[in-house]
Amino acid sequence: MEAITGDYDDIENELIGLIDLLSEYGQDSEGGITRLLYTKEWIDAQNALMEILKEKNFTPYFDDIGNQFGRIEGSIYKNETILTGSHIDTVVNGGKYDGQFGIIGGIIAIEYLNKKYGQPLRNIEVVAIAEEEGSRFPFTFWGSKNIVSKIGEEQVRGLKDNKDIGFVEAMEEAGFNFKNGHSPERKDIRAFIELHIEQGGVLEKEKKTIGIVNHIVGQRRFTVEVMGEANHSGTTPMGYRKDALYITSKLIQEIIDAAKEYGDPLVTTVGSLEVTPNTVNVVPGECVFSLDVRHVKKKVLEEFTDDIYRMIKRTKNKMDININTNMYMDSEPAIMDPNLVSIIHEQCKNKNRSYKMMHSGAGHDAQIFAEHIPTALIFVPSHKGVSHNPAEFTETKDLVEGIKVLIEILHDLAYV
Amino acid sequence: MEAITGDYDDIENELIGLIDLLSEYGQDSEGGITRLLYTKEWIDAQNALMEILKEKNFTPYFDDIGNQFGRIEGSIYKNETILTGSHIDTVVNGGKYDGQFGIIGGIIAIEYLNKKYGQPLRNIEVVAIAEEEGSRFPFTFWGSKNIVSKIGEEQVRGLKDNKDIGFVEAMEEAGFNFKNGHSPERKDIRAFIELHIEQGGVLEKEKKTIGIVNHIVGQRRFTVEVMGEANHSGTTPMGYRKDALYITSKLIQEIIDAAKEYGDPLVTTVGSLEVTPNTVNVVPGECVFSLDVRHVKKKVLEEFTDDIYRMIKRTKNKMDININTNMYMDSEPAIMDPNLVSIIHEQCKNKNRSYKMMHSGAGHDAQIFAEHIPTALIFVPSHKGVSHNPAEFTETKDLVEGIKVLIEILHDLAYV
Repeated sequence: MEAITGDYDDIENELIGLIDLLSEYGQDSEGGITRLLYTKEWIDAQNALMEILKEKNFTPYFDDIGNQFGRIEGSIYKNETILTGSHIDTVVNGGKYDGQFGIIGGIIAIEYLNKKYGQPLRNIEVVAIAEEEGSRFPFTFWGSKNIVSKIGEEQVRGLKDNKDIGFVEAMEEAGFNFKNGHSPERKDIRAFIELHIEQGGVLEKEKKTIGIVNHIVGQRRFTVEVMGEANHSGTTPMGYRKDALYITSKLIQEIIDAAKEYGDPLVTTVGSLEVTPNTVNVVPGECVFSLDVRHVKKKVLEEFTDDIYRMIKRTKNKMDININTNMYMDSEPAIMDPNLVSIIHEQCKNKNRSYKMMHSGAGHDAQIFAEHIPTALIFVPSHKGVSHNPAEFTETKDLVEGIKVLIEILHDLAYV
Repeated sequence: MEAITGDYDDIENELIGLIDLLSEYGQDSEGGITRLLYTKEWIDAQNALMEILKEKNFTPYFDDIGNQFGRIEGSIYKNETILTGSHIDTVVNGGKYDGQFGIIGGIIAIEYLNKKYGQPLRNIEVVAIAEEEGSRFPFTFWGSKNIVSKIGEEQVRGLKDNKDIGFVEAMEEAGFNFKNGHSPERKDIRAFIELHIEQGGVLEKEKKTIGIVNHIVGQRRFTVEVMGEANHSGTTPMGYRKDALYITSKLIQEIIDAAKEYGDPLVTTVGSLEVTPNTVNVVPGECVFSLDVRHVKKKVLEEFTDDIYRMIKRTKNKMDININTNMYMDSEPAIMDPNLVSIIHEQCKNKNRSYKMMHSGAGHDAQIFAEHIPTALIFVPSHKGVSHNPAEFTETKDLVEGIKVLIEILHDLAYV
């Protein structure tokens, strides 16, 4: 493999310019970006991106559901495409890096390679994936799911946003209808590389610049309902109480302690808790809490979930109360392509980059691609781990470092 | 003392009739009674009560803030009054027994005594206390506080209800203004006896009919604020977290366990808990919970509060986070008059009643009177301990038993 040693000086300025430019689309009153699927802000951002792609001599095009691609034709392997990019939608009041950094980084990397080495052997495309977050409609990974498999309107028909607008109606309004002749499903993609901010604090805490992701965690989410007995806080002796919050507290502690003992990379979170009636002078009668369990191995997820069921059953019997558990999400872990991971790993070692092999605790488009196509995911640090928030921040030098890693792997895949 | 062995047969019917009659005032759409201070429902109830008092040959009158009395003049000790009764106001969507049972029981008891024994030696009065609950304005025990001490408009000026109506404005609107010539403060009261439902489940659980209250608990209420760090639930390893809900769970468990270990009659309740941001995929950054501690002895309240402060301090240091504690209520325990308690006790023993010496875990007008006047509080059972709720219920035979106890003690105080 030919080493890339060229001039990176232009990258930084171009990067800052493009992030500022694209961040104008969806600026909200709270200082963040709100760019929900198929809204005006989303359409404006996609159109601005098309202008950028044209200017940089990519061939831009949309597929029939609104994924936008910027293509550089390959000279030899015309049926083989190397894809990079990330999602263009944001959460409500999101930051400047989540998603769009992967698109901009892809554009810059491909432009750099094209200028330095000319036409690639295989096609290279950057993609602005229509939707990942599920922030407008209760459906996630709409963009990437369409690329890797044939899914139709049936999956989303009937879904409404919070203004009661239907998914299909919103899609058609934005100009996409499955019928424009550019089927989203792709058979030519040989690899997908996603560049993304970490959205966690591990790289920063461990003073590393690059995260090479080997796994994306699977997730199980539950609702747990603890049924006690509401009573007057003054007139009910301690021995007569069935205090739902006290029992819930014991459960939370037991579950979290067990997760800590299990060790990394298992994470378990009780993020939300509703107490009823939630009044200072009434012993809580009912508590409902959420439980979010993540691990890179399906077997561990299953094992630990079984542990939790046992803890709940024991508490139920001991306290003589009802506890209902409902698992409403069960997504499997995804494995990044071992070959791609080891190429990136070698490249980082050779360049003496500051890197860490790690898993992703958050979901990414890469996990959808990984089921069908060799896929890699590259992280750069997130300051204080903050994401989905206007305060999201990554140092420019770290962003540039991420783009360099992307350049190297794309070169390896499309030029060799 | 002359034993009362007369005919009680009329009591039951009269009781049912009066409770049904008075319950019509303030009937709300949810099947309960909402009769807030100085509202139309409250005025209507007071007026209906005045008609009842007139019909039964009491001399009814209001004092200048709206406490209504029904008087039977004494034959000899004309400057000495024995008072019984309870509050006429209710909480929002309250039950049929809280408060008004004590008024109706008082009317029936005095009527019974008057019919059976003629004019008492001392004046006997029944009182419909204007306000106890604090459900309209943020001020409790307005009625009884005015009877035992001179308090003026200053205490309530500036207070507003949730429709922004001022306390003094509402009072004047209802016809009360401190200036009608019937000063609320009384110097002639020699004893106050309150008959009330338990509002707890102790009598029912222990299969007793009468509760002879010896103490009313003091209360301390706190707000505790636990400041952790909000983080992504997937990307933040367990070891990097400052999970406010996990720490709160530990604290709740430690505090409640300590209260249980301390033993009756200490009760401690965490009734309300707010988690921020309270989202399934974010490690909780902040928790605010309430703490309600009650005991019959001031010293124990102080001791146990100090224990709680120590637990919080230990947790704060161990977890390296901020925890703020704010005590916003500190009411002292009240002691019922030992002489009155022992007379009632003797009477119950002599009659072979099913009784229990007990404390009250809830606040009552009796605690305000007790600071100035020999006071007793008599309980009858509450089914399942339910109160402040349309489901509030006490068997008629238990209500009648309570009235009999009231008859005996009033006879002892006013006729002997």
